[in-house]
Amino acid sequence: MKSISILGATGSIGTQTLEVMRSNSEKYTLIGASANSNYNKMIDIINEFKPKFVALMDDLAYHKVKTYCKDNNLNTEVIHGLEGLNTIASCDEADIVVTSVVGMIGLIPTLMAINSGKDIALANKETLVAAGDIVMDAARKNKVRILPVDSEHGAIFQCIQGNDKNNIEKILLTASGGPFRGKKRNELVNIMPHDALKHPKWNMGKKISIDSSTLMNKGLEVIEAHWLFEVSYDKIEVVIHPQSIIHSMVEYNDGSVIAQLANPDMKLPIQYALNYPERFNAVIPRLDFYKLNLLTFEKPDTETFRCLKLAYEAGKTGGNMPTIMNSANEIAVNLFLENRIKYLEIEKIIEECMNKFEYIRTPTIDDIIYTDKNVKKYVKNKYCK
Amino acid sequence: MKSISILGATGSIGTQTLEVMRSNSEKYTLIGASANSNYNKMIDIINEFKPKFVALMDDLAYHKVKTYCKDNNLNTEVIHGLEGLNTIASCDEADIVVTSVVGMIGLIPTLMAINSGKDIALANKETLVAAGDIVMDAARKNKVRILPVDSEHGAIFQCIQGNDKNNIEKILLTASGGPFRGKKRNELVNIMPHDALKHPKWNMGKKISIDSSTLMNKGLEVIEAHWLFEVSYDKIEVVIHPQSIIHSMVEYNDGSVIAQLANPDMKLPIQYALNYPERFNAVIPRLDFYKLNLLTFEKPDTETFRCLKLAYEAGKTGGNMPTIMNSANEIAVNLFLENRIKYLEIEKIIEECMNKFEYIRTPTIDDIIYTDKNVKKYVKNKYCK
Repeated sequence: MKSISILGATGSIGTQTLEVMRSNSEKYTLIGASANSNYNKMIDIINEFKPKFVALMDDLAYHKVKTYCKDNNLNTEVIHGLEGLNTIASCDEADIVVTSVVGMIGLIPTLMAINSGKDIALANKETLVAAGDIVMDAARKNKVRILPVDSEHGAIFQCIQGNDKNNIEKILLTASGGPFRGKKRNELVNIMPHDALKHPKWNMGKKISIDSSTLMNKGLEVIEAHWLFEVSYDKIEVVIHPQSIIHSMVEYNDGSVIAQLANPDMKLPIQYALNYPERFNAVIPRLDFYKLNLLTFEKPDTETFRCLKLAYEAGKTGGNMPTIMNSANEIAVNLFLENRIKYLEIEKIIEECMNKFEYIRTPTIDDIIYTDKNVKKYVKNKYCK
Repeated sequence: MKSISILGATGSIGTQTLEVMRSNSEKYTLIGASANSNYNKMIDIINEFKPKFVALMDDLAYHKVKTYCKDNNLNTEVIHGLEGLNTIASCDEADIVVTSVVGMIGLIPTLMAINSGKDIALANKETLVAAGDIVMDAARKNKVRILPVDSEHGAIFQCIQGNDKNNIEKILLTASGGPFRGKKRNELVNIMPHDALKHPKWNMGKKISIDSSTLMNKGLEVIEAHWLFEVSYDKIEVVIHPQSIIHSMVEYNDGSVIAQLANPDMKLPIQYALNYPERFNAVIPRLDFYKLNLLTFEKPDTETFRCLKLAYEAGKTGGNMPTIMNSANEIAVNLFLENRIKYLEIEKIIEECMNKFEYIRTPTIDDIIYTDKNVKKYVKNKYCK
């Protein structure tokens, strides 16, 4: 029986984590769950999984859930705001914390979970992008595992099992290419949010869908891979693979490439992370190679999709540069989703911020939080009239 | 420094093994080498690698090499026939024996090597096909490793590193499909040896090239995989993959598939087997996914290529049935190469022998040798006028 806390339990990854738990309910117990404002979904979670703690960020949602639990004599303790998030992340009973909140807000609770000795099923990629050095250092000191919960890093993680990391020649990070693969820059000018939200292969949250369309998602993953697998940037190569069947590959010094394949379904990497090093029976449909037909590969077009190039630059520069890039991207994607900026302004804003903000070579966690706030404030003030 | 003996040093795998050794000459030393009749090549090997022992099967070849060594005051001991083969297989100095002779003749020296505690780099697939139970049992008792030296089993071996064998759901054995992929039976009637020897992806010996064209090669590999990885036949699936880039895959219970990819070059699995669990730097060109373009998959056509079906039948029946099948195939391929039978008679002869010969449920090694002799004698007498 594994005790699980989920940060961001009502989002896409949170919901699929609960599905995985439901499929094998005698193996898992839900200790804590947090949500932003979706109180209806949280009440459903409480009724089904009976967690010990839940946290709601939103004021109204907190009161709704609190009242519901009181009125129905439920034992679940309902906690408000960041205090609640931190309780969920670090409560004694949890064996593993799934960090599936989106954006920089995941950073502090993730660090709290690590410092409380919890293994991390990491779905919040911004955590490693913004503070990879600090997070991985804390993980090493606390001897906790950072288990990647996305299809790419989960794949890489599987491809290095039983191998010596020193023999890694290259990490081949696959990318579907997103909904605008093959388009040129002039075709991207008038992209609207609903165009960018239609991903060809994955059904995901809004932020990650936009990131996927700009290839920033792959950029974030490059930086994440750098920290997770301790591999230098020149050894990480992005390969466009539109079918999303190969979820990533690792090339070794002898020329052998190990790949992980599966139907595109997040429940597999979630399940793998929850049970590592064990493998539980499939909760996803199996691949059928007699029907699969073909797999293709391309070089990414970084002239059109410049976010990927910017991410490599930020990663190689290091320090707080990935934080600047990530925060600029986070706020720019929000503004785009609110129809306040145009699609290509996302990359323009990122580049502008990367050129503008003070570079800190060895940032502390406070430097990172400060950088994040400043970048977002600047972009809001300038672009959000 | 690893001490290596090669059974079948002048053939395709033997030659490529020597290439691998040459590429990293300070890491390997050649202790023994055997050949059938190619004395010129053996003399070259002696001059370059200075082995302690060499064995020649052929009378003339033996005398030529013996005289050469004497005339040139070389320290290499030259031994004749099976006695020589067995010395090479079991001499004290060898750490690992590469068994790359073709056909049933590899069986006894392989068993001798195992019983002498040598790790085996197994390229002779007939050994496991004809006597898998006996060979694997001997390997377990002597605590030696059977390291597969072919691209498929080498791939599977890599795909199970760091995984629990009990979690294997399926082995996906890839096959190029050979030179006649897509053809129907009426197009196979008049196939001549030189047609069948033209393999689209691999440059191999004659026997294996014919086997590859009939899909018997894949059938032998299915049986080999059964023994090597202790997986039942219903969990071994053949997938036609004409590009020969994915060398095989393993599907796990959770729906995850691990694959091994590389440019088709036998030097990679040879090198991997020689150095396992280490990986040495590449002796083959690396894959370039930006140029690779596409990978395709198909179901094998076992109505046209019936040898694959026969191999599954023989494997599932067990006992001496795979021996009967293998011996019938060995002699039939020889007769085809000598233009004594037609292409489709190969499968006809195999089926005839599988129906005709006495089934022994738990054959001893003597039963296997007896079966082999009888089958070959019968086929020769009947088809070789």
